Amino acid sequence: MGEIPVAPVGRIIKNTGSLRVSDEAKEELTNILENVGYEIAEDAIKIAKHAGRKTVKAEDIELVYKIIK
Amino acid sequence: MGEIPVAPVGRIIKNTGSLRVSDEAKEELTNILENVGYEIAEDAIKIAKHAGRKTVKAEDIELVYKIIK
Repeated sequence: MGEIPVAPVGRIIKNTGSLRVSDEAKEELTNILENVGYEIAEDAIKIAKHAGRKTVKAEDIELVYKIIK
Repeated sequence: MGEIPVAPVGRIIKNTGSLRVSDEAKEELTNILENVGYEIAEDAIKIAKHAGRKTVKAEDIELVYKIIK
């Protein structure tokens, strides 16, 4: 945990048109994106191994996202 | 677009246990998390406005995530 920095995620909310954003909102969205990232990474690794590879490729990430979306 | 840096997202995949990760996989997951961030932010702003506020709070982000999860 704690890989994604909070400031860029705060800018995502600001860019979307919000007048004001609480610090807790920025932290909450950062935590959610981090969790989503770990969930996708976990399944992408399974898919890469399933395909007989030791390298996670973009197509593994894309396939997970297609499945869960 | 382009707010979340790629390196921390690459570490998320590495932390999850992958031996190797292609640069394109890191970029792909970064783009996905950025898109998810914008989608949640958009709905959180609607929920904040709906509650008569001009400030996006953590509870708005949490409510969106509960709804979409």
